[in-house]
Amino acid sequence: MELRPPKGMRDFLPKEKRIREEVIGKIKRVFELYGFEPAETPALEYAKFLEGKYGEEEKLIYKFQDRGGRWLALRYDLTAPLARVIASNPQLPLPFKRYAIDKVWRYDNPQRGRYREFYQCDVDIVGSKSMMADAEVVACAFRALKELGFDTVVRINNRKLMNYIMGKIGVKKPLEAFRAMDKLDKIGEKGVEEELKRRGIKKVREIIELLEVRDLKEVERRFGESEGSKELRELFNYLDECEVKYVFDISLVRGLDYYTGPVFEISSEFGSIAGGGRYDGLIGMFSGRDIPATGISLGLERIIEIMKKEGMIKDPGVKAKVFVAEVNQKERALRIAEKLRDEGINTEMNLMERSLGKQLEYADKREIRCVVIVGKRERVTVKDMESGKEEEVEEEKVTFKIKEFLK
Amino acid sequence: MELRPPKGMRDFLPKEKRIREEVIGKIKRVFELYGFEPAETPALEYAKFLEGKYGEEEKLIYKFQDRGGRWLALRYDLTAPLARVIASNPQLPLPFKRYAIDKVWRYDNPQRGRYREFYQCDVDIVGSKSMMADAEVVACAFRALKELGFDTVVRINNRKLMNYIMGKIGVKKPLEAFRAMDKLDKIGEKGVEEELKRRGIKKVREIIELLEVRDLKEVERRFGESEGSKELRELFNYLDECEVKYVFDISLVRGLDYYTGPVFEISSEFGSIAGGGRYDGLIGMFSGRDIPATGISLGLERIIEIMKKEGMIKDPGVKAKVFVAEVNQKERALRIAEKLRDEGINTEMNLMERSLGKQLEYADKREIRCVVIVGKRERVTVKDMESGKEEEVEEEKVTFKIKEFLK
Repeated sequence: MELRPPKGMRDFLPKEKRIREEVIGKIKRVFELYGFEPAETPALEYAKFLEGKYGEEEKLIYKFQDRGGRWLALRYDLTAPLARVIASNPQLPLPFKRYAIDKVWRYDNPQRGRYREFYQCDVDIVGSKSMMADAEVVACAFRALKELGFDTVVRINNRKLMNYIMGKIGVKKPLEAFRAMDKLDKIGEKGVEEELKRRGIKKVREIIELLEVRDLKEVERRFGESEGSKELRELFNYLDECEVKYVFDISLVRGLDYYTGPVFEISSEFGSIAGGGRYDGLIGMFSGRDIPATGISLGLERIIEIMKKEGMIKDPGVKAKVFVAEVNQKERALRIAEKLRDEGINTEMNLMERSLGKQLEYADKREIRCVVIVGKRERVTVKDMESGKEEEVEEEKVTFKIKEFLK
Repeated sequence: MELRPPKGMRDFLPKEKRIREEVIGKIKRVFELYGFEPAETPALEYAKFLEGKYGEEEKLIYKFQDRGGRWLALRYDLTAPLARVIASNPQLPLPFKRYAIDKVWRYDNPQRGRYREFYQCDVDIVGSKSMMADAEVVACAFRALKELGFDTVVRINNRKLMNYIMGKIGVKKPLEAFRAMDKLDKIGEKGVEEELKRRGIKKVREIIELLEVRDLKEVERRFGESEGSKELRELFNYLDECEVKYVFDISLVRGLDYYTGPVFEISSEFGSIAGGGRYDGLIGMFSGRDIPATGISLGLERIIEIMKKEGMIKDPGVKAKVFVAEVNQKERALRIAEKLRDEGINTEMNLMERSLGKQLEYADKREIRCVVIVGKRERVTVKDMESGKEEEVEEEKVTFKIKEFLK
């Protein structure tokens, strides 16, 4: 019998899970530093709420009918559910700043760093149309990555600017063009050219030329100042105050349909590790009432993969600090273990019919550094598994001794 | 448009989510005190792995085919996935002690304290057949509840004992009888009697009489000593060392099919808040190799509901400690906010085009106690939102001042 989890999904054994918790804890800490509040939505949504939001990627949604005939879907990202929550809670004071670190599901082709079940770490600001909000989510993501040890640059563009330019050069279906441009990293300029043609876009030459522009000033020189370019200048101005490293990147458009303003992406040599943008229309798709919003999402899986590969993280170690071994002294050992727990010391104890040698072997394999040995004699032995040093102490002094040891 | 989450599922806005995190944090802390390690499995499993494990409840599993035609299911509990993980990782040193605090899904009839998506908090010990392991999971759950402020009693019985007694009194289909007995709390003795008859059980009178036995000694007097009763005596002996409050309860059988030894349940006046038992056969259902295991699960939803109702918990408060307000001083405000964040102080700032009055109103609504006001003048104002007291300080001394304030 094949006992693995479903294709593209993973089990996390303790060592891996501890590393993940460590990384998530650091990210969470930075999210809170910026005053974001946690919120949570169900894994499942009514399918209709996810439809019409993701463009061509919609086909990746896990969708099914429940016993009652309702069409349900596993959430594809954390943004559409947030938009639904906002639309259904008009009482929330705005701006509403929330973070979510949770699973999403996509029926994608599993490959290195890409899974069918994976975590996203999102911050979003709802209710502010100010570029300050965009600056804040970017600064927050930048700081989180810095905290984890990444030296990154945020690539930034603006959908408004791109729509404006598409208009200027006479591209009829800008969204189609964006979808092709979005693949530049993967398929190169030649590939984008073909993709544009395949999608029936005219003005291919002009678009390809555009991809070479490196400078917002040059854009304004060629196409004139526009709302999009003004937004970017304001955003860059704020980012300078935050000491965020960023560049203007005209080739960045991002795949999703719902972006309406600035878009951001942070890449590593292994591909994108964070991305987001402004989506002023998405909440209106739920409630009819447009509410501006912007956000960014950190891709936890790739971040962890890189951190492991580059030695940027180590296992924080087992939770148990002490192992209580015993030779036919179960009750007494139990009493000692409970006393240690009373004092807040993570304690594991022998639960098997094993020789003392085997018990020590287990503690060693578990990487628990301190062992208390309870035998027939009144005094018990405290053993340092690293140095092998042993010391006998009276039972009532064990807790005190161990506390000293763990310091 | 109906904007609520799917039936029986919930959104958690920040206040609620903070409370949940607080409770989960305390439970997690106790789990780690006992040396349990975190592990995680996907939300989805191959459906076949969940089938044949839950008896009559199997119909509650969310099941569907993915695009590739594979039958997937949302996990029904955290135990079957653990059993799969153990079966597929023979390299794990035993005993393997893991905890998991995560979502499960059941297509159940939503009612007060019962949802279609909810959290379970599980500890399990795999690889030990000793009653010490059962004592440990019970003691751990008991301590977690105590830590949360609950004064509880663990009800304990043993499936082995019950099977033995059923044999003695001549009940042919013990599992069927257990399913009826399991409903005692809900439908009363009369109800169980009818349910037994409905299920075609003979010896109804004997079973009903049995339900009145209060004492393990009486059981042994009437039916003789058995492996099950000996296990219970050993377990009770260990629990006495842990200062766990418990009672023997012959009416407790627990609904699930996979239990093979001691079973435990902790009830509140609102129904069960924790339950579990030994399941020595479950892992063998995956790998063919029997590995003993025991565990207990805390029902987070009911626990939180009771804690709220009884005033056992309060909102730990917003994450942001400081709000930076400004009047046409966005860049400067941003600089100050970033400096506070550098110092580890959770800081929110004005992201709107709002008057100072409106900004203070927002900070107040958000329940942020300390506001920094950045105006044209060189010095900035630090305001205590509770007392209304204000103080002017130089910009470079803001961080110092705020630190003092937050102490």
